[in-house]
Formats: sequence, C-alpha cells, structure tokens
Amino acid sequence: MELRQDADRIMQAALKAALPDTAVAKALAGRTFDGGKLVLVATGKAAWQMASTACAILGAAIDRGVVVTKYGHSKGPLPPLEIWEAGHPVPDENSFAATQKAIEAVSGLTQRDTVLFLLSGGSSALFEKPLISPSELEDLTGQLLACGAGIVEMNTLRKRVSAVKGGRFAQLCAPAKVFSIVLSDIIGDPLDMIGSGPACPDSSTCQEALAIVKKYGLKLSDQTMALLGQETPKQLDNVETQITGSVRQLCAAAETACRQLGYEPVVLTSQLCCTARDAGSFLGSIARHHHGGGRALAFLAGGETVVHLTGHGLGGRNQEIALASAPLLDGLEGAAVFSIGSDGTDGPTDAAGGYCDGQTMALLRQKGVDLDAVMADNDAYHALQQCGGLIITGPTGTNVNDLSVALVRG
Amino acid sequence: MELRQDADRIMQAALKAALPDTAVAKALAGRTFDGGKLVLVATGKAAWQMASTACAILGAAIDRGVVVTKYGHSKGPLPPLEIWEAGHPVPDENSFAATQKAIEAVSGLTQRDTVLFLLSGGSSALFEKPLISPSELEDLTGQLLACGAGIVEMNTLRKRVSAVKGGRFAQLCAPAKVFSIVLSDIIGDPLDMIGSGPACPDSSTCQEALAIVKKYGLKLSDQTMALLGQETPKQLDNVETQITGSVRQLCAAAETACRQLGYEPVVLTSQLCCTARDAGSFLGSIARHHHGGGRALAFLAGGETVVHLTGHGLGGRNQEIALASAPLLDGLEGAAVFSIGSDGTDGPTDAAGGYCDGQTMALLRQKGVDLDAVMADNDAYHALQQCGGLIITGPTGTNVNDLSVALVRG
Repeated sequence: MELRQDADRIMQAALKAALPDTAVAKALAGRTFDGGKLVLVATGKAAWQMASTACAILGAAIDRGVVVTKYGHSKGPLPPLEIWEAGHPVPDENSFAATQKAIEAVSGLTQRDTVLFLLSGGSSALFEKPLISPSELEDLTGQLLACGAGIVEMNTLRKRVSAVKGGRFAQLCAPAKVFSIVLSDIIGDPLDMIGSGPACPDSSTCQEALAIVKKYGLKLSDQTMALLGQETPKQLDNVETQITGSVRQLCAAAETACRQLGYEPVVLTSQLCCTARDAGSFLGSIARHHHGGGRALAFLAGGETVVHLTGHGLGGRNQEIALASAPLLDGLEGAAVFSIGSDGTDGPTDAAGGYCDGQTMALLRQKGVDLDAVMADNDAYHALQQCGGLIITGPTGTNVNDLSVALVRG
Repeated sequence: MELRQDADRIMQAALKAALPDTAVAKALAGRTFDGGKLVLVATGKAAWQMASTACAILGAAIDRGVVVTKYGHSKGPLPPLEIWEAGHPVPDENSFAATQKAIEAVSGLTQRDTVLFLLSGGSSALFEKPLISPSELEDLTGQLLACGAGIVEMNTLRKRVSAVKGGRFAQLCAPAKVFSIVLSDIIGDPLDMIGSGPACPDSSTCQEALAIVKKYGLKLSDQTMALLGQETPKQLDNVETQITGSVRQLCAAAETACRQLGYEPVVLTSQLCCTARDAGSFLGSIARHHHGGGRALAFLAGGETVVHLTGHGLGGRNQEIALASAPLLDGLEGAAVFSIGSDGTDGPTDAAGGYCDGQTMALLRQKGVDLDAVMADNDAYHALQQCGGLIITGPTGTNVNDLSVALVRG
C-alpha cells in the first residue's frame, strides 16, 4: 500500500507541474493585442485549461472564440467563448461542427486582427474539417490505429485529407496574424506534427505519405489517394509560435516528487518510443534487479510508446506498460511499476494508466485471469480492474505525453 | 571512434572478469576425490575453458572424461579427456555421439566414484541423447526458435524428449556421486533450466510442457506428445551442485570498467528479458535523452532478450539490440549503444554482437540500406557489416548471457 501511495503522490505532483496555466501566462505576459479584433481558438485535450488561463489574463480583450476539447474535458463556461466537446481518438460530428465554428470565427478578419491559437495534443481528432466523407476518415483513422502506426505517420496522412491541418488553418486566418501557443505532446516537439500542425508550415511530403500507405498496406479510396498527392503549405508569414510544456518537464517534476518521498530518482529518458509491453518488461526487470538492495530508487521514463493491436479488448499503452511489468515483479516486496498518460485518459478508457506490484500476479491468479490471453486481446483495462491496478484521475487539464516509473524500496 | 574504443575496452574487461577460471578454481579448492575413480564431463560453450582449469588443478586425479563444446570453441587437447565439438543452437550428430561417449564414461561406476560435471550454457543443444529421431528433434528445436519461445519454455519441452536432460544424466551416473559446477547463463540462475539441467531435479511439469505446445501451436508427433507426458526426476540424492558466474558479475565488471574510463555507470538490470529490438529502442532513447547534458554516462543492462523471427536474414539478439538503437542515435555526437553475447557468438553468426552510434544511420543511408526492411528480415548482421558495426571477439571461453550498454559523452 505504501508504494501505491507513493505512486499516487508522484503522479499528482508531476501532473500539477505539467498544467499549462503557468506556461500560457508566461507566453502572454506583457503582450497586447491592440488595434484589432482578438479571436481565441483553443483545441486539444488541454484546450479548456489553456483557454481558461487566457480568459483570466486577457478578459474583455477577447472578442469571440471557440474551444474544442474531448468529451468530459470541459470544466464549465468561459464567456464569450463557445465550448465544444468532441470525439477522440476518432473524430465525430462534434469535431467537424466545432471546427466549422472556429473557421467561421476567424473568417473576414483583417491584417490588424489576431487569432490566439491555443493548441494541445488530441487536436488531430478534435480539430478537423475533412476533405473526405466522415466515414472514410473514420476508416482511415481506424486502419492507422490498428496497424500500430506512430503518431508522426498518422498525422502525415491525416493532414492531407483535412481543410485545417498541415498549416491550412493559419491560411484560413490570413490576413490576420496568428499567435500560437503550443503544449507539446510529441517527443522532440516537432511543431508541424502536434495536432497535425494547423498553424505550422508542414515539413512532411506527399512522398512520405504514400510511403506510409505502402508500409502498412492501407486500403484507401481513389479520392483519398488523390488528396495524399496534394502538397501542404511550406511557409506561413502570418504565424508566430511559442512552444510550452513538454514531457521533459513532466519527468523533472516527477523526479522532484520522488526525491521528496525519499527515493533516489534516475531519469532514464524523456523520449521513450518502443512498444508498450516491452517498455513494461524492461521497467519490471529494472525493479527486479534492484529489489532487495536496501536502497529506495525510482527510475523514470517519459515518452510515447506504441501498442500493436492484436485483440479487441479495452486498454491503453500505459495500462499495457504496467501490466507487462507484473510477471517481473511477481512475489517481490517493495517493487512497483506504474504508468500514466498525462491527459488522464489512456486509450479509449476512463483510466489514466495502471499500477502493478509484487501482489498483482497473485491477485490475477486468484481471479483466474490468464495474463498471456489478456495481452493478446489488448485487454489490460479489465485485468487491472480485477486487481485494483487502474489509475483514475479524470481529465487532468494537460497533455504532455506519458510518464512511466519503476519504484523500489528496501 | 573514441566511443567505439571505449565500448571495446568495456566489453573486454567485462568478458575477462566473466571467464570461469577463477570460479572453477574456487569451487575445487581444498576438495579431494579420494578412494574412487574421477570422471570429468564438461559441456556447454564454456566447457573447454572450465575443463582446462579443472585439468590444471586436478591433474592425474582425473581418470577419463569427455568435453563437448560448440564448433570453434575448443582450444586444444586436454589429456586424458576426449574433446568433441558439436552443433549449436541445433544439435547434430556430433552432439549425440559425444553425449553417448559421456554416458559410456560414467557407466559402471560405484558409490566410491565421482563424476565432475562442468556445465555451461549451450548444453541444451550440445549435450543430448534424444528419445525421438534426430530429424524430429531438429524440427522441434526449429519450431521453438521460430516462435520466439523463451529458453525456459524451450527447455521444459526438450528435457522430456531426452535421455540426459531434466536430471536424467545424474540418474545414469548413479550410484556414483556427481559434483556439478554450473556457469549460469539464465536469468535468476534456475539450476534445472541451465543446459536443461542434466544433473538437477526438474521443477518443470508435464502440465507446463503441454501448455507450451498449446501456447505456440506447435505441431508434434504422437510419440513426442507421449514423451512430454512422462515426468522427470524430482529428487536426486547423489548430486552436489555449486553455481558460479552470472550475468550480474558481467554487469558489475562492466560497471567497474566504465567507471575507470570516466563514465558514471548506472546498472539498470541484470534480468532484461523483453524483445531485443525494443530493448535497443529503449537504450537508444536513454542515450538520446542524456546526450548533450555534459556528463559521461553509461547505462548497463544484462540479461537475455527475445527475437521474434519474421524473416530469413542473419543476425542475433545483440545485433538487433544495437541496430534498433540506431534511429534514436541518428546524428548525435557522443552517443552509442552496443550489445554482446558473453560467449562471443550471437545467434548463428561469427559476431558477438553489434555497435551503433550517431553515424550509423548516415552510413546505412549512404549504402542504400533500408532499416525497416532489415529488421523485418532479421538481417542485422549484414546491415551492421555495412557500417562497421559488427563486434567480433571469437569464442570467449565463457557464457553468462548478454550485456547491453548505452554510452553518452558530452
């Protein structure tokens, strides 16, 4: 129980430090938007939180605007903004309607006007006006998720079948200026990939898009294939961008929290990108090795792992990381692995991630749960639910990728 | 070049410290084998090295004996011992003939006699008298390697179709005493799994064996299935065992070498068991994160990773680890990942492992090598060959599993 409490404290401290409030305030400090209209468009899982901070600072200077976030992620009205909740990871009618509202809000502006664009992860699905039918778009997204494509690959394709991605939203804002504050959820902060880069010149090419189709053997319509051949803007003169927040900060905050709880923290990486279950096995093997050595150690890894879907169960990459560590921890006292998505929603579940320790396997055996079968079915959620291993935070207001931790005590 | 030299120095120091000479000498110190015959049987990749030390210490006290090691691993005659070289990882006619000679050498002994049994990794293939036809055994081994079964799973099956594994060799030695010195190459040193435990009571059960057949959908003959249902000895009163050497020592030796070269070493684990390419990606992401931080760091991981064969190329798990790290290291100065099998032979190749750094991807691009295709074909050997990334040590005389290291400088 002590380890679980430590895990909860570490993640709470890290999540709090990763909230975008300070970052947005800092980006807006000393900045005025005189002489024209100020339109706010906020999109992503952290959209409400970012917009809330901007409203508190800018107040009546904001003329109008639209906030698009994931279902359950709005925390109330922010007048004069229109608040929308929409589908993620698969965009839905609300995504399209909200995006259309945003396009209308930035229409007819002049050179003297400014669009304050607050962008966070999740926007690829939430902020979307597709150039293909919604069902075709859903099919494309589904194929990309199922084949284990990385987010960079997914976005390379999605921005080409969209009216707003790949810099196209900034084109729609012109001639108004766009001031973009970006909360990064992709390793290395590649600006044109975060939310598929609505206000960023696109570095991906048509050639790369077609290579991805070939790599995964995607089955796409002729119309979609034609759109993949249309190039995105490579230069945008009306945009100024400030990037804030990153998984590096999440790791640093967790590191501080670990130290305060008496652990010697070791930040392994902020760029984890291997498969989730192997990351879990690696972290489990780290805990197993150091267990019993008499030291309190915390090994931290930030990043975004990949899940290869082989089944139809419920789960997410953080839940897979935690569960995959369980066999390595089996029977150990004082060793645990936990992993969370900083947005509070891991995969299509209501959990932020998972926690496993030396008792997990015994609990699973007791419940008759076969771990191999669970893994093959990508059903980590229900297995963790059986052994009290789900981490539920609710939407956190931020989205700067994932944090995985191996804890050893004694 | 500096990093490559550091890598070479670290691995040389670690391999030297992992030689079984000291361990065998220590196990034999002060021990006498009076009053009866002394028969030596040494098997595994380190068999020659272990037998050589035993001969030097015991001299004329040894009546007769047999040494079975992998092709190229004998370093000369050791009279009065018969030296055999045989097939690994797939056993061949020499494995069977040498094992038959060993069985004959321990036949007809009395309670006053002793069999000195020197066991090291690789023996599962090298020390074998199959109870099924050689072609059926080859097929079983091939199926197990191809499906990515772990060594524990492989041995659970192989000991049941063998006359010598799973404690059965010790039964053949009775009523003579067996003094067994074991150089461990399996994580956690499970005695009954090392070389499939010829002189160790077997903890695996028929039930487990059948579960493995089911898990991987193995296609086996009725005769093989019947043998899988025959239980192995669970108690052996004539055996005394001393376990020596382990991957933990290999890591500790590497840790010392790193420190001497000016690196701050961090031993992550001695129990790594995830897939090779994800271990490589994880290590690469560690190097990428710490690169440029101004510190010289070395992250060490010992263990045995798994390769899922999807192609027909040439390689081994250590070569896959190194190559999988290359994209993460791309373009970085002062960051490298290398990985070696301590026996000097990684997979069915003449390389001990692989080395990659920030130049590797550029070299591969220059040579027109497509890394994704290489990985899909399990052809790490030829890719590393193209960029000078193969590590060639020749047979080392030891076999205590693998060592993987991420180096960062500056």
